[in-house]
Amino acid sequence: MEFSKTPQRSQNQDALKGILFPVQQELLALEEAIFGLLDSQIPFVRTVGEHILKNGGKRIRPILTIVCAKMTGFQGNRAAQVGACVEFLHTASLLHDDVIDNAKVRRGKTSANALWGNHVSVLVGDFFYSRASQLLIEQGNTRILKVLADCTIATTEGEIWETLKSSDLDTNRDDYINIIKLKTAFLFQAACQVGGILGGVSDCFVKALSDYGLHLGMAFQLVDDILDYNASEDVFGKSQGIDLREGKLTLPLILSLGRAAPDEKQVIKNAVLADKIDQELFERVRQIIRKYHGFEDTLGLAVEHIAQAKQSLDPFRESLEKGILASLADYVINRER
Amino acid sequence: MEFSKTPQRSQNQDALKGILFPVQQELLALEEAIFGLLDSQIPFVRTVGEHILKNGGKRIRPILTIVCAKMTGFQGNRAAQVGACVEFLHTASLLHDDVIDNAKVRRGKTSANALWGNHVSVLVGDFFYSRASQLLIEQGNTRILKVLADCTIATTEGEIWETLKSSDLDTNRDDYINIIKLKTAFLFQAACQVGGILGGVSDCFVKALSDYGLHLGMAFQLVDDILDYNASEDVFGKSQGIDLREGKLTLPLILSLGRAAPDEKQVIKNAVLADKIDQELFERVRQIIRKYHGFEDTLGLAVEHIAQAKQSLDPFRESLEKGILASLADYVINRER
Repeated sequence: MEFSKTPQRSQNQDALKGILFPVQQELLALEEAIFGLLDSQIPFVRTVGEHILKNGGKRIRPILTIVCAKMTGFQGNRAAQVGACVEFLHTASLLHDDVIDNAKVRRGKTSANALWGNHVSVLVGDFFYSRASQLLIEQGNTRILKVLADCTIATTEGEIWETLKSSDLDTNRDDYINIIKLKTAFLFQAACQVGGILGGVSDCFVKALSDYGLHLGMAFQLVDDILDYNASEDVFGKSQGIDLREGKLTLPLILSLGRAAPDEKQVIKNAVLADKIDQELFERVRQIIRKYHGFEDTLGLAVEHIAQAKQSLDPFRESLEKGILASLADYVINRER
Repeated sequence: MEFSKTPQRSQNQDALKGILFPVQQELLALEEAIFGLLDSQIPFVRTVGEHILKNGGKRIRPILTIVCAKMTGFQGNRAAQVGACVEFLHTASLLHDDVIDNAKVRRGKTSANALWGNHVSVLVGDFFYSRASQLLIEQGNTRILKVLADCTIATTEGEIWETLKSSDLDTNRDDYINIIKLKTAFLFQAACQVGGILGGVSDCFVKALSDYGLHLGMAFQLVDDILDYNASEDVFGKSQGIDLREGKLTLPLILSLGRAAPDEKQVIKNAVLADKIDQELFERVRQIIRKYHGFEDTLGLAVEHIAQAKQSLDPFRESLEKGILASLADYVINRER
């Protein structure tokens, strides 16, 4: 089977809305908590914050916190607050990532650093990190604080590692797996874990949620790296080919580099090392990846992680929330953005 | 009295060493704690961390923590650990500040971002912030955590405010005072406060230390802003005139701008707005500031803060540590770097 231009989609953009219908109220509380956290004596912080947070992200990570908390019996507004902190940690890393990548587009809108400069992205990112810490400290749950602080270190380490590996043609599958675990999957894991901690369930249940989150996060990043080559810019909200343009070796490329003929390898090497990549070169690289099933096998690995994510939920009896988590797993593999 | 080329110095570079002689052991423990915190699964973090931390800073902020802790009866290694966290928060803000300012020189050495790019400065700065949080969470003193998290927000807000005020000729004395309080003085305040919290003394004593730190921090930044125009680059470890080159309106300039004749005002305005400033223009601005006692009056304000800092220590009986804090106050006003 030839790998189709974009991975097969069974759900449209409204799919997420449908899945989350049963937790609508909680999501409203989440939005309130998120925008409440933007209070600052410098009104400009809110301007930048609203720019990046409005009409924007899918809020997958805080949704995980809220659904996991609800599934494990937690009631009350604190889940929305902790969820908001999770989203703030994620947003902070996006803001800092934009500085790093010189990204011009984020979530379909002009990135904060393109609008206001690197200064603002770094500092408002710092504000997001510290505001999240501040709220978590006020809440006083040391275990949640510890999980999220450890996770922030991992995210940062993953991003440093990725930066160091930029344009490094020796980057192998293991490097890649470790990098995406650190930079992406651990925050998904932490988001689920803190939900379970809020719920106050036993360690084995927290562990189950934690495993679910880890596998979901792995699949999420794998699909992201496929979409970077294949998604429609309008839907994905990011330009196509950013990873290649930044010399970032993601799994589709790593797999194909190992399988390609010498002249094809040369094309990939040129693309990874080149300062600028025109549409023709990008197209050629994409063809080579397709030829060697780079997208297909990456998607295959994502599918495995999704299966493991769902399996991790086995210890829990059936519930509305368990259904949401399973549907979210399917959504992650089928998403177009 | 004409204001001399550099503020009068009564102490040399060894002064600090002399003052701190009685807490040598504690300072060794501090260094150990600082470099211990650099442990990461990414060895490159240590490389960057050591670059910025070695042969570098004066460690004034963690010294305050350690001396305040000792003065209030705290014994044990935890003061060094908390001090290391304070230094990490400060270093993180330096790393992020270097990205912002495009600084080429920091503490007399090439800045991290000039060596490894903005990527690394942002991410290693993030690592410093999160490692400090992680250790503080492990230590489990919620009050210390809260003081330092609140302070990090203030620092960030101060830096955002300063960025927004860049090249703004309407920046007035009040703006400036509020900015330096947020971006600098609050961390000095927090450093002293957490020392007192470690010591477990009553709120009135913690408040006294907190006041001492705040005034010391104000004086420190005021002197820094004088040194930026006057210090020898070799001694100061930073290029002369960075503030003016960045369009940063500090008190010496703000005071002189209010007092200068129209043609002199024009010179200052040109310098603040110009993309590049040659030595001649810089020299002219400095002359104007001198003529209108900009440095003298800024130093006068710093001297007032130092007096208030010392006065804040009145509630404490005489001790070796109280003597150190008083000497540190004198050092801050007389320092050449």
